[in-house]
Amino acid sequence: MPPDVLDAGLMRKAVDTVLEDFLAGKTEFAGQPITAQLMGAFAEFMSGGKRIRPLLALTGWRAVGGERGNGSIVRVAASLEMFHAFALIHDDIMDDSDTRRGRPTIHRALSGIHGSDHSGQFGRSSAILLGDLAFTWADELLHTAGLTPVQYAALLPLITEMRTEVMLGQYLDLCATGELSDDVEATMTVNRYKTAKYTVERPLHIGAAMAGAGPEAMAACTAYAVPLGEAFQLRDDLLGVYGDVMDTGKSRLDDLRAGKNTTLVALALRASDAAQAARLRALIGDPFLEEAGAEEVRAVFAATGAREAVERLIDDRYQQALRALDTAPFAPEATATLENLARTATRRTS
Amino acid sequence: MPPDVLDAGLMRKAVDTVLEDFLAGKTEFAGQPITAQLMGAFAEFMSGGKRIRPLLALTGWRAVGGERGNGSIVRVAASLEMFHAFALIHDDIMDDSDTRRGRPTIHRALSGIHGSDHSGQFGRSSAILLGDLAFTWADELLHTAGLTPVQYAALLPLITEMRTEVMLGQYLDLCATGELSDDVEATMTVNRYKTAKYTVERPLHIGAAMAGAGPEAMAACTAYAVPLGEAFQLRDDLLGVYGDVMDTGKSRLDDLRAGKNTTLVALALRASDAAQAARLRALIGDPFLEEAGAEEVRAVFAATGAREAVERLIDDRYQQALRALDTAPFAPEATATLENLARTATRRTS
Repeated sequence: MPPDVLDAGLMRKAVDTVLEDFLAGKTEFAGQPITAQLMGAFAEFMSGGKRIRPLLALTGWRAVGGERGNGSIVRVAASLEMFHAFALIHDDIMDDSDTRRGRPTIHRALSGIHGSDHSGQFGRSSAILLGDLAFTWADELLHTAGLTPVQYAALLPLITEMRTEVMLGQYLDLCATGELSDDVEATMTVNRYKTAKYTVERPLHIGAAMAGAGPEAMAACTAYAVPLGEAFQLRDDLLGVYGDVMDTGKSRLDDLRAGKNTTLVALALRASDAAQAARLRALIGDPFLEEAGAEEVRAVFAATGAREAVERLIDDRYQQALRALDTAPFAPEATATLENLARTATRRTS
Repeated sequence: MPPDVLDAGLMRKAVDTVLEDFLAGKTEFAGQPITAQLMGAFAEFMSGGKRIRPLLALTGWRAVGGERGNGSIVRVAASLEMFHAFALIHDDIMDDSDTRRGRPTIHRALSGIHGSDHSGQFGRSSAILLGDLAFTWADELLHTAGLTPVQYAALLPLITEMRTEVMLGQYLDLCATGELSDDVEATMTVNRYKTAKYTVERPLHIGAAMAGAGPEAMAACTAYAVPLGEAFQLRDDLLGVYGDVMDTGKSRLDDLRAGKNTTLVALALRASDAAQAARLRALIGDPFLEEAGAEEVRAVFAATGAREAVERLIDDRYQQALRALDTAPFAPEATATLENLARTATRRTS
C-alpha cells in the first residue's frame, strides 16, 4: 500500500490564514483611506494562485522530519507566496500583460483608480510600488516567524540566492525576448534560474533547511527539483500557446505577441526550413498578432516536431525527478507528496 | 570651544568601501557575461550620491555611545544606501525622469543595451529588475553585518517601518501628482512619510537602536529628525524649480512637467487669484513645458509669496531641529555633527 500523502488542502489553508490575517492588519496608513483601494486590489490578487512554493516549503520541512503544525514554517511558507506576489506583479508590468489568474493584472486594475490622462502610467507606477510593498511584507513575514538563530543562519543565504536567481533569470529572459534564436541551451538556462530553482528547488531547500537538513537531503532536493522545475516551465511554455484561457486565466496570445524565446520556439527554429523560420520570425513578436497568426505558428510547431519534442523533454525530466525520489532520504509521506506533485506539475492544464 | 564633529569623510569612505567590495562580488551570474552591462550601470550609479542616510545612521550610533570603527554599523549603513539606490531607480521610472545625479537615469541608460524597437520598454523593465536586485542586496548586506540577536530584534521592525513608510508615502505622492490642489497639509503628510521619516528619522533610529538606545534617545531622534526632514524636502522642492542643473544634476523642468503637487505649488494655489491659479493649472503638469513656461510659473510663485513662504517654513523647521538638539541626550560630537547637517541640508544648493 502506498504511503499517505500530506494534506495539501490543510497546508494551503494554514498558509492562506496567515496571509489573510497579515493583510487584514494593512488596511490603513497614516489615516489615508486612499490606500484602501491599493490594498483591496492586492488582497483580491493574493486570493488566487496555486500556492506551489508554500506547499513545497512545507513538504521540504516534513521530508526531513519537521513536525506537523509548526507555526514558524507556515509563516516562512506564506512569506514565499508574498514574495511571489511581488515577482508576478513586476513580471506582468515588464511583459505588459493584461490578465493574470483570469482577472486584470494589477497594473491594469490600478490604472482605473486615477481619473487622469496618465492612467496607464499611474497604473504601472502604483503596481511597481505595490510589488515593492509585497517584497517588504515578505521580509516582514519572515522576520516575525519566530525563527531560532540557527534557522535564521540557515535560511537567509538561501532566501538571498533564490531572489537573486529569479531576478537575474528574469533579466536573461528579458534580454532574449524579441530576439528569436535557435539557441535551445540558452532557453534552458533561463528556465533553470527563472523557474526550476525559484519555483521548486529553493522552496524545498528552505523548508528542509528550517528543519535542519544536512547536505545529503539538500542534494536530494536539488536532484528532484531541478528537472521537475524545468518540466514545469516547459509545460508553462506549451500552455502559453496551447492552453485554454478558461483554465490558465491568461491569454494564449501574450507570449507570442511578446516574442518570448521559449524552448519551444528555439526548437522550432532549429528544425525549420527557411520558409518556416521566416514565418516564425514574422509572427512571433508581432504585438498585433491575432488568433489566425497564432494558428499558423502552431502549425509550424507541429510540422517541425517542436511541440512533440517539448512533450518528450517534459517526460524525460518527469522520469528523472521520480528516479531522484527513489533514493532521497525523505519521510515516506513527503516522498509520496512529491511524486503526486511531479505528476500534477507536468500534466496540468492551468 | 565647540566640540569636534564626527569625520564625515572617513565615515563616507568606510561605507563606500563596503559597497564597492560588495558589488565587486556581483559581476557574474551563471556564467552569463550579459549581466556585466547591468552591473556596470549600477556600479556607476552607486558611485554618486550624498550618502545622507548612512551618515545619519553612523551619527545615530555614535550619538548614544556606539564605538568608533564598528564593522556591523558600517555594513548596516551601507545597506541603507543600497536600499536607497533601489528606491531612486524605481522612483525615476515612476516619474519618467531622464537624469539623476547629472547622468542619464538607469532606465534611460539601460535602454541603450537592447538594439530593438522596444528599447524604451527594455530599459524600464531592466531598471525595475535592477531596483529589485538592489533591494535584495540591501537585505544581503544587512544579513551579513554580523548583528547580535538583540540588535536584530531592535533593527528589523524599524527597517520594515522605514520601507513601508517610504513606499506608501510615494504612493500618496503618485496619487497627488497631476491633480493640483491647494491642500498644503496633504503635501506635508507626503513630505513627512516620503522624506522626513525615510531620509532622516529612520536612519538615525536605526543607528541609535544598533547601539541599544532607549525610548528617550529614540524620541530625541524623532524631535530633531522630523522637522529637519520636512525642511530637507521643502528645500528639494525649491531646488526642483530654482536649482542649477550643474549643482543638482537634474532638470529643473521635471517636477513641473510631471505636475508634482509640492507644498510650494499648494501654497501658491492657495494665495492665487483666479487668473494666477488658471495659469498654474495650465502650465504645471504640461509634459512639454519649456523654460519660458517655467519662468511664468516662477513669477506666480514670487507674486503669491509662495516661494518666500516655503523659505520661512524651512527656517522654522531648521530652528525647531536645533532646539531639539539642545535637550537631546546625545554625545557632544554627534550633536555638533547633527547641527552641521541641519545647516547643510536646509541651505544646500544640490
